[in-house]
Amino acid sequence: MDIQLKQYNKHQIFEATNESGYSLLVGRAEGDNTNVIKPMELLLVSLASCSSIDVISILNKQRLVDFKYEVTVESKRKTNEIPAIFEEITLNFIFNGTVSPKKAKKAVDLSLEKYCSVSKIIEQTAEIKYKVIVNGKNYE
Amino acid sequence: MDIQLKQYNKHQIFEATNESGYSLLVGRAEGDNTNVIKPMELLLVSLASCSSIDVISILNKQRLVDFKYEVTVESKRKTNEIPAIFEEITLNFIFNGTVSPKKAKKAVDLSLEKYCSVSKIIEQTAEIKYKVIVNGKNYE
Repeated sequence: MDIQLKQYNKHQIFEATNESGYSLLVGRAEGDNTNVIKPMELLLVSLASCSSIDVISILNKQRLVDFKYEVTVESKRKTNEIPAIFEEITLNFIFNGTVSPKKAKKAVDLSLEKYCSVSKIIEQTAEIKYKVIVNGKNYE
Repeated sequence: MDIQLKQYNKHQIFEATNESGYSLLVGRAEGDNTNVIKPMELLLVSLASCSSIDVISILNKQRLVDFKYEVTVESKRKTNEIPAIFEEITLNFIFNGTVSPKKAKKAVDLSLEKYCSVSKIIEQTAEIKYKVIVNGKNYE
């Protein structure tokens, strides 16, 4: 699992490419160069996507496929420290459609407590909270 | 710093979007859907780009701007554990052009030892190694 980063046009912006050739722009937005993602935002994407792969995989194995799925992520940073790492991250797992709230919650629990490698890394320094919301109802 | 993730076309692939509207595809490649980045790869991108912002910023403040810059990242995972988190990550900081090796190395040191928030998070569970390579010469 290797990655290459190249400086983009003399800015504090970098084009990152993985081994299969997917690339993205990451860095510090400056002037007209605002269409990038920040490194700390990528950590949140990494966490949410890592657990989402588990959640969808677990539910699909139970033949639960007929729902819309999204995750929103909120974060608080330790702004009085340098560097300002995350203090708390909240993941909202949102399901709409035909899915048992119990099974959805079980899939999220299994991911964050057992399978997700990114959460095992990030939970060393930040509290990871989550909510499971099925058809508008909160199963915290 | 908020993030939104939506399931992409019923796959274990997700479109992640930040507050300024930048989006990327992250998840598990399946069948024809191979053009994505994996969650654990994003952690490496996050680490390399976090430190690169510091490095470029520090060198530019010293009016060092006339060089090409890239970083390659290699990683080893604890493959006998579940989840298989990183055991060791090596960052190769590669400069070509007019830059003092001493100043380049100092900038990298400062970032990884003091400023970079992502390295502070990831170093809790993985050894982070790095090399500074200026015009083909290694300053480990």
